[in-house]
Formats: sequence, structure tokens, C-alpha cells
Amino acid sequence: MGAESVWSLDPRTGERRGDAPVAVAADPAAVDAAVRAAHAALPALADRARRSALLRAAAARLHAGGESLVAAADAETRLGTARLTGELARTVYQLRYFADLVDRAADAGGFLDIRTDTADPGLTPPRPELYRVQLPLGVVGVFAASNFPFAFSVPGGDTASALAAGCPVVVKAHPDHPETSELAAAALRAAAVEVGLPEGTIGLVHGFAAGPELVRHPLLAGVGFTGSPRGGRALFDLAAARPRPIPIHGELGSVNPVLVTPAALAEPGAVEQLAAGLVGSFTLGMGQFCTKPGLVLLPAGSVGDACAKAVADATAQVPAGVLLDARMREAFLDGFAARAALTDVQALAPAGPAASAEAPLAVLPGVLSVTAEAALRDSHELLLEECFGPGTVLVRYADADEAAAVLGRMDGCLTATLHTPADDPQAPAWLAALAAFAGRVLFGGWPTGVAVADAMQHGGPYPAATSSGTSVGGAAVERWLRPVAFQSVPQALQPRL
Amino acid sequence: MGAESVWSLDPRTGERRGDAPVAVAADPAAVDAAVRAAHAALPALADRARRSALLRAAAARLHAGGESLVAAADAETRLGTARLTGELARTVYQLRYFADLVDRAADAGGFLDIRTDTADPGLTPPRPELYRVQLPLGVVGVFAASNFPFAFSVPGGDTASALAAGCPVVVKAHPDHPETSELAAAALRAAAVEVGLPEGTIGLVHGFAAGPELVRHPLLAGVGFTGSPRGGRALFDLAAARPRPIPIHGELGSVNPVLVTPAALAEPGAVEQLAAGLVGSFTLGMGQFCTKPGLVLLPAGSVGDACAKAVADATAQVPAGVLLDARMREAFLDGFAARAALTDVQALAPAGPAASAEAPLAVLPGVLSVTAEAALRDSHELLLEECFGPGTVLVRYADADEAAAVLGRMDGCLTATLHTPADDPQAPAWLAALAAFAGRVLFGGWPTGVAVADAMQHGGPYPAATSSGTSVGGAAVERWLRPVAFQSVPQALQPRL
Repeated sequence: MGAESVWSLDPRTGERRGDAPVAVAADPAAVDAAVRAAHAALPALADRARRSALLRAAAARLHAGGESLVAAADAETRLGTARLTGELARTVYQLRYFADLVDRAADAGGFLDIRTDTADPGLTPPRPELYRVQLPLGVVGVFAASNFPFAFSVPGGDTASALAAGCPVVVKAHPDHPETSELAAAALRAAAVEVGLPEGTIGLVHGFAAGPELVRHPLLAGVGFTGSPRGGRALFDLAAARPRPIPIHGELGSVNPVLVTPAALAEPGAVEQLAAGLVGSFTLGMGQFCTKPGLVLLPAGSVGDACAKAVADATAQVPAGVLLDARMREAFLDGFAARAALTDVQALAPAGPAASAEAPLAVLPGVLSVTAEAALRDSHELLLEECFGPGTVLVRYADADEAAAVLGRMDGCLTATLHTPADDPQAPAWLAALAAFAGRVLFGGWPTGVAVADAMQHGGPYPAATSSGTSVGGAAVERWLRPVAFQSVPQALQPRL
Repeated sequence: MGAESVWSLDPRTGERRGDAPVAVAADPAAVDAAVRAAHAALPALADRARRSALLRAAAARLHAGGESLVAAADAETRLGTARLTGELARTVYQLRYFADLVDRAADAGGFLDIRTDTADPGLTPPRPELYRVQLPLGVVGVFAASNFPFAFSVPGGDTASALAAGCPVVVKAHPDHPETSELAAAALRAAAVEVGLPEGTIGLVHGFAAGPELVRHPLLAGVGFTGSPRGGRALFDLAAARPRPIPIHGELGSVNPVLVTPAALAEPGAVEQLAAGLVGSFTLGMGQFCTKPGLVLLPAGSVGDACAKAVADATAQVPAGVLLDARMREAFLDGFAARAALTDVQALAPAGPAASAEAPLAVLPGVLSVTAEAALRDSHELLLEECFGPGTVLVRYADADEAAAVLGRMDGCLTATLHTPADDPQAPAWLAALAAFAGRVLFGGWPTGVAVADAMQHGGPYPAATSSGTSVGGAAVERWLRPVAFQSVPQALQPRL
């Protein structure tokens, strides 16, 4: 009985690349070995200077190996070398950004979040001397995403933030890019060895069964996940059902609605600019972004009509492309067709297969249109759910009440966007309505593109996320820490972290 | 069909107090009404000045009504008026403490945790202007504890911290003190009305079935729980199984081990002082504290023998008392007997019934002793689990390795305590070993008594807590908030919170 082989696939054809598998699926013993090796690295990671050195060394190695990493990722995802070069640069920046946070962790505002109290026996109850600091949770399991082979995968934000916190990681590779995963993991492990940390600081496992095995492992202390609602919920349920439940920070899905007010379309050129921006955003990376704007509230009437037409026209100009894998392609085409088949839904641009000799699995993006009245019907709930891929739904509303009713039906979202002039007296009320269900609220612009920044929030109410954490930006580190208060411990004996 | 009556009981006899029930159990409609009324109060609570006014008004009313509150609580719990007067003072202080935090919420270090980024289009990825702030989660369900009729019940830390965050609450009263719960809820609701907030800001429900009903309610956004591992886990499972899971911050149980090194017993008088401190701590409030020291690692040998004897002698001096209810009494007596019945376990002071005419349900505290070698046997696992009530287990260790092995077997704990001189070269290693499984690590002293302070951590790895949150101290507010980033929102339109 040999181990199950893991092959790299060509997303244009769905066929195997190369003559040999790139890895083997991890059986339970292999998962156990990876978790134990990571756990053994925990004490070494307590050295904060070494952690930031690791993150910087990893950044340097990924940067140096950029050409082969991007080539592998493009062969496995067909996201294009321009996009992938940018994504790798983002990933390198992200590692250095977290290294800086590690260096500043003990400062005011740093993630060690040091709080102190002096003794005051006169209070009720009396107060002892207290020193509160954040300790690493333990081994973190990271589930790589299909759509970001670097930034949300092996060397991505979950890995970087966990290492920054002092937590070793075991990454479950995504089957859409096993070769890229192996290359990136090798770079991270070499960086660990370079700075004197155990190789086991970063583990990598392949294969579907390795996921549940990882989440159930007694030594696992937390999980980061980016992926589908179905997969994420299954892992969430496993994490909650453990004898000792562990936190799972999952990012599962998001509709990312955009509200366009009539006033936003009033200026000359506004209609064309909005249409171009929207189409650029929802077809970026073939719509395979968790922040893709999947529902756009457009006013009814002639200006809205003109905007809808401009969106349809711009969409028709977008060339066909391939999705990350055959399953995703099928889910997109089926999902788009199911929405298009609902009564009173109009396909302004029909998504569909667009096979070529080179890319038999290519598809064209699509746009649907529906009135808010119809979108609010119970029978049309599907329109308010995410359809991953290059498609969006224009929802034409008659008045503010209708727009508010649609927003009120939204599940938790990563983002929500308002297009209206800054002097719109209703703007604060709309922003509050968006903040009620979203983790990031944009005034103008488009939600695709997530900055790595101190004030970023990439999360939101369920199913956007399974916790209040963020998976992008400085606060991401906080997910992998737990506070401990030291009471009456002499300063010389307090841990230096 | 009338609603099920809720009676106040006398813990000395287990019999009903008074001629009439003090409340009725909430049926599903009553739970729904309470949650909806609380949800309707959410917008009004956005006014931060009103929130701190509410907390102060509640503190003033509880203080003013102290005599009747303490009388009711003593009749229902028999914790004694001295203890209950202190607990009420603590609760009043806690409300004012959170009011101060609300006033300072937007300052640096305040719980709104405001983070900002300026735009920098030159970064990879480009950075927009960002403003990140914490918004209230929504309606919070609070499960009151049996053992603190004020500080961890209707007007307790979960309620105060949730209101501070801007979250209305629905409290599930504990059946051990329904009359006290009604009085406290009336005071809180009157305070709400006094400051111009809806009465529904604070809801109260009674009855076992109201608990699951509350956790399953679609409008509930979070849960605070203090109680048993069994009850807490059941609610945790319900919260995780919801179509939209919600966070549950539960405090379920803790052994709170104490490590006494040989050096700690070397000074003249140290043995007696340690014994007196331990017995005072584990019998305080009849051992009905989540922070009760339930396991004490004492060195083998003659000094340890002397200490064990001093503990037994001091325990024999403790008068009998009643536990909070008949079920708790039974669980304690059964739990103590089961541990005492294990091979090689010695009862230095046997816990048992101590009925008197006035208090037929009274019990005496107890102390068990066992070698570390025996305690580490798989058959003796029970000794490493919490036994709620006035009992503790002395574990006699031969050397540091044995002590470390016992600590290594500990489940998550709220506290862990080290007794050793400050110049013990092993002290930092022991402190690290304790911090690996505890939320609060004490150097000397005793874990009972939890200060309301900025740097407090009252939580710990599961089952001490079901999250990384704290249920006591300033950070408790953070459990009821979620971050939202506002991107490119003009300053005038950013929410003022």
C-alpha cells in the first residue's frame, strides 16, 4: 500500500502536469508527526528576536525565489504572472510587516498588550500587583486558500501572523497548487534553519483527509481557514466538537454588496466610471476573490438603466478565462444558471463556457439584473448568497426603503460599499446600515484589494468569518495569543517575552 | 395551563421559602419577548454617555438597596451577610469601574481600540485611509452563577461589561437565588429608565428551559456563562450548532493547583502560615469558588508531613456550613467520597454531612492526601479534576520531576500558584510551567479573591474558559465587541462611538 499521490493539475484542461506527482497525501501518522514537530518548536519560538529574523529571512527567500514560485503558481492557477508577481510582493511585504510588529510587540499598542496594575489593598476587592501579557496559543493549523497561492496560503497571512505570535504552524496545502505549496514551504523551512529554529516550525500536509485529522489533533491549539462556507463550517464543527474545543478563525464567504445612490450617478461621466470600476472589480482574477462585489444596488429609472447597460457592455469586453479548478468552474456555472433561471431575473451578460483549443475549460463572466421587489422574495434567496467566480447581480431598487430592505437581509459580509456624494445627508445612516453586517465599510471605491495595515479588518459576522478576528492586518496576530495575568510576581521573575 | 412557578429555597433545608413563588419560568414566548425588547434597545445604547450613566445609576441603586438585597441573598444562599455585603460592594465598584472605562473608551488604550492608517498608494498592496473601531455585538445572554448572587449574576461582571460595550442583556437567573435576581434586575431596569434608556435594556428570565431557548434565539449575538462544565459545555455546543454560531464566553471549572516547594516551608513559622492560608482559601464561602485551590503539591518528607498535619488540624477547626443547594451538596459529598475511595488515598479530614436542627443539610470540609506517584495513575484521574465545594487534595511529590509531571497533566485552569522564595533559581521555570495551563499565575498568596482591575485575567485554557476572554477586569468588555474598518470614509461621516 503506497501513500496516495498528489498531482499538480493544469486548470485550463483539468489534466495532470508533468510525469510525476509533486507530493504524497499525509496519512494520520504524517499529520501527527508534523504536529509533534511543530509542538517541539514552541519553546524555541519564544525568542522574539528569532521570530522576527525568521519572518525576514522567509521574506528574503521568497523574494529571491520569486521567478520559480510565480512560474509554478501560474502553471497551477493561470492567474497570470502579473497578478502573481504582485501577490508574491504583497506576501513578502506582509512577512516583513509582521516582523516589524514582532519587534515592537512589547511597546505601547504592541500585540503583547502588556497591562499592569499596582497593588491597592484599600479597594473592594483588594487589588494585588498584576502584570498581564499575551502568550502564544500553541500549534496553529492553517488551511490554505485556492485563490491566493501565496498571500492566503503556505507563506500567507495566517502563517505569518501565527509565527509572529510565537506559534508554530502546520499548513494544509490547497489541492489547486501543491507544487507552489511545496516550494513555499521549503523556503520557509530553510529560513527557519537559517535563523536557528527547528525545521518543524513550519509543517506542510497534503490531501483531503489531512484536514480533519489536523483539526482533531490533541496538540493543535487553533485553526486559520480561508475557503468555502461548506468546508469551513465542517472544520468549525470539528473544532467545536473536540474534547477541548479550539478557536477556529475561518473566512467562509461574503456577498460584498455595493449601494449606489441616485446622487452617485448624477455627475457627468459617473455612470461610465462606476460601470468600469465595477466590472474591473468583479472580474479581477476571474472573480475569485472573497471580496468580489457580488450584489450591486442600483436605482431604478433611466440613469440606473444607463449604468446597467454600461456594466453589461463593459462585461462583454472581458476576455474568457479559466477558473482555479474544474469543481469551481462547475459551481460557478451552475450557480449562475440557477440564479438566471429564477423568475424576473434577466441575464444582461450570460456567463458560460468559452472553450478554446488551449483552454477547453475557459468561461466568460456574467451579469444578472433583478428588481429589489423580486430579490426580496423568499423564493429568490439565492440571489443574496455568494456565487464564487466572475459574476454579479444588479438589484434595481425603487426607493431607499427597498434598498434598506435588501441590506437588512444580508448575511455577514467581509465588506460593504457605499457610493454616494460626501454631502449626502443620508450617508451616515447608510454607513451604519452597512456596518451592521460587514467587517469593512468602504466609501467609494471597490472592495477587491485588501491592504496589509494596522487598521485593516478582514472578517465580519458569520459567514464572513467564524470569529471577531481579522485575517489581514496587524490585529491578525491577536488571534493566536491568550492573556495570562501574573499576580504578585517579582519583576525579576516576570516572563520577558 | 399556567406558567411554571419559580420558588425561592432555603439551602439549609432545601425547602421553599415563603408562601408564594417569586417568579414564573419563561416559556419560549417570554424568552423571545425579552430578547426582542433587548434588541430594540440597541440603538439607544449607542450613546456612550448614557451607557456610563446607566452603570453609575445601577451602582447607586444597588448600593442604596443593599440591605434588602443582602437579606434576600443570605436567605437564599446562606453565604453570610458579611461576605454578601462585601460581594455587593464589589459589584457596585465593578459597575462604576466599567462606567469609567466607558468614559475613556475612545482614549488611547480604551476599549474602542481606535486604529487609523493614512493612505499610501506606493505600498504593495496600496493602502487606503482606514479607521478601525469596535462596535457592539448585539444582544448578550448572561447565565448567572450559583455561587456569586451579585458579582457573577444579574448585576455582575458579564452584565456590566456587556452594557459597557453597548450590548443589551438578557440574564438567565440562577435557580439558587431567584428573589435576589428579581430585586437586582428591578434595580438595573429602574436605572435604565432613570437615564432615559428602555427598560428592555436588561431582561431577566427564569427556568431551566429558558437557557437553551435563549442561546438558540436568532437575535442573540453572544453568551456569557459561569457555572459547571456540564452545563457550560451543553450551551457551548448549542451556540456552535446554530445556523449562525455565536461566541460563548464560558467559565466552566478549574482545579487551581498550588505548588509548594521545600524551600517555601524552610523558614520558621512557614508551615503553620501556609496551612492557615490554604485552609482559609479552600473553605472560604464553603469552597464554592471557581478559584478554590483544589490540589496542593506538597513535598514528601518530614516538613511536608508537618504541613499536611497542620492543614488537617486547621480544617478540623472549620465549622460546618451549608452548600448552595441540595444538588451541589450531593455532588460534593459524592465527589469527595469517590476520591477518598481510590487506592492509596488518605482522608486527613473527612468531608461529610454534619446535620443540625437548624441546618439539616450542613456539611464539614475535608482534605485528602495522596502520593504524586498514585495521583499520576490513569485510574486516579479524578484527583486531577475539580470537586466543587470545601475540599482539597494534597499531592505529595518526591522530587521536582514528579511535581512537574502532575502539573503537566493539568487541564486548563483559572489560576495556578507557586509558593517558593523569590531567589529560588527554579522559580522562572515553575512560573512558565504554570502559565502553560493557567490564566492567572500567582507568586505566593491564594487564588480565591479576584481583583477587578485592568490587568486581571479570569479565564484560561479549556475547561477554565471556552475562549481567550476574561470575565473579570477591564478586558472583559472586549468580549462583546467586534471591529469594523471604515475605508476612505470622510472624517465627518465616520461613526462617533
